[in-house]
Amino acid sequence: MTSAEKVSLIHGAGGEMMQSLIGSVFAGIRNNNAGGIGLEALDDGAAIPFGDKYIVLTTDNHVIKPVFFPGGDIGRLSISGTVNDLAMMGAKPIALTNGVVIPEGFPIDDLKTIVRSVDEALAEVGAAIVTGDTKVLPKEALDSIIINTSGIGITDRPIRDSGLNPGNKIIVTGTIGDHGISLIAHREGFKFGSELKSDCAPIWKTIEAALKVGGITAMKDPTRGGVANVLNEMAKKSHVSIHVQEDLLPVRRDVRAAADMLGIDPLEVANEGKAVIGVEAGMADVVLAAIRKTKYGKDAVIIGEAREGSGVIMHTKIGGQRFIEPPLGDPVPRVC
Amino acid sequence: MTSAEKVSLIHGAGGEMMQSLIGSVFAGIRNNNAGGIGLEALDDGAAIPFGDKYIVLTTDNHVIKPVFFPGGDIGRLSISGTVNDLAMMGAKPIALTNGVVIPEGFPIDDLKTIVRSVDEALAEVGAAIVTGDTKVLPKEALDSIIINTSGIGITDRPIRDSGLNPGNKIIVTGTIGDHGISLIAHREGFKFGSELKSDCAPIWKTIEAALKVGGITAMKDPTRGGVANVLNEMAKKSHVSIHVQEDLLPVRRDVRAAADMLGIDPLEVANEGKAVIGVEAGMADVVLAAIRKTKYGKDAVIIGEAREGSGVIMHTKIGGQRFIEPPLGDPVPRVC
Repeated sequence: MTSAEKVSLIHGAGGEMMQSLIGSVFAGIRNNNAGGIGLEALDDGAAIPFGDKYIVLTTDNHVIKPVFFPGGDIGRLSISGTVNDLAMMGAKPIALTNGVVIPEGFPIDDLKTIVRSVDEALAEVGAAIVTGDTKVLPKEALDSIIINTSGIGITDRPIRDSGLNPGNKIIVTGTIGDHGISLIAHREGFKFGSELKSDCAPIWKTIEAALKVGGITAMKDPTRGGVANVLNEMAKKSHVSIHVQEDLLPVRRDVRAAADMLGIDPLEVANEGKAVIGVEAGMADVVLAAIRKTKYGKDAVIIGEAREGSGVIMHTKIGGQRFIEPPLGDPVPRVC
Repeated sequence: MTSAEKVSLIHGAGGEMMQSLIGSVFAGIRNNNAGGIGLEALDDGAAIPFGDKYIVLTTDNHVIKPVFFPGGDIGRLSISGTVNDLAMMGAKPIALTNGVVIPEGFPIDDLKTIVRSVDEALAEVGAAIVTGDTKVLPKEALDSIIINTSGIGITDRPIRDSGLNPGNKIIVTGTIGDHGISLIAHREGFKFGSELKSDCAPIWKTIEAALKVGGITAMKDPTRGGVANVLNEMAKKSHVSIHVQEDLLPVRRDVRAAADMLGIDPLEVANEGKAVIGVEAGMADVVLAAIRKTKYGKDAVIIGEAREGSGVIMHTKIGGQRFIEPPLGDPVPRVC
């Protein structure tokens, strides 16, 4: 990245270009580790050893627009995003923060609605907002509310996104692309017969059920850049290849139809209530069964497995193979 | 606050109006405590019991404009703000987060400069940025970079802003009003002979020195709303009155001159490298001596004391008394 360059939208879209920006700028922070897993890992969060446990710490800025969308709002999203990042590290969510930047003129009633959504999502997982910060900007300086939610969780053993071994099975905890596709359809004012909606949910209870069974080797949530990006990151960091079966990928029929009309690959858009999980082969069926018993895991499936090698390979319905490339960035802006 | 109301700039200015917004909206969050000190305390951070220690958690959105200012930049500010909030709870800063929202077109070189400032401030206190999040917004959606810095620290015993007892001495760790006055002077393009500059600094080492001596009963950092706001909050929460001597208030001559020309009270503007500390009377002199030995505590003074009663009373140079009222909000917007 040369010195005259400027930040562009694609740098925030969760794909390869974002990795490039992070690599050339934020990876330059030298004070990047407090013991355990730090910034250098670029995982879903950090893990700091404390006694015989780990404190997991994570942060997310939520800039979604519009603030209210089918299936949720920025309040539910902010809790879900941070709870899920903690869960991906194997940590029980304990305490979250609420840092809001509000544009002047924002209706107080909308703020109250958002706060109710925050509370409902917290109650689902037994976590709490324990501290906050409120800033207000002139309306010409900011067009829509931003919420940063950071949080801490506790775990005995952090799960990494880099822990896949050859032979591990790959589970997706539910249907793919619901959040990104429903959001763009809503924004564009499209109607597709059925009501598309976001999968936005705090999925700690689903992850907890999987962890209790055991055999989990790696986890990551497919937000910006979608499943395509997450599979590539996990494969690359774990030094394995991932093979997925196209006919096993769970995509809702209405999401598929909308995605086709929009010309967007559901694999490349954000999900906000899903996880990609690596499991030891011998444990995969019992883990899957445990996940399916939970509220947000009913549609979970095994979509493939890790093998020696590199890259993410899709075995197509007609018997061919093609690489699933990491997207340059999510095709849908301001999705989370 | 009625239902048709909208958020206005004064709601983010750190004074009474902000307390009103927080009280009517965010105080409505019911899942607000993870044990220990939670959102309901509206302190500088939360404290969560963990083994025989407390994890302190805090968050701050930094929306300062311009991003580079005399004495610092948004990178140094973001670390200082969060380190100081942890320090005010008596906690050693351990691990911080870096959540940035960048407007499209922001120069990469400026980002790198900000990251260097972040690193330098971290090194001063031995803390680390362990995780982050990067979002990019269209330039018509956001006018200037926002950085959220959350963080955790560890303490054996959290210090409260509500712990003052009658008889406690009140220490200010240095000169008052430097950040707010220098920022507005810089923004307005004023020249005042000497170079006014922000006091922006991470003051953990100063606070650590005070804590090691002992006798500290309460702490709070006078950011938005300034010393006037902090003294009122501490007095109200502690159920005491605070009496300060006007002739003991440390205000730099050039800050005073600029403040007079601008018609702004230095007591009502943000400081970014200062603390207001309550100390048991018998310990005040030794605590003060310890603070003065530190880099950011050289100008520390005792400005008054807590007594029975309520309110904040200034004893003027000419022998009168007047209330120091809590400001409606900081007179200077986007100071932190």
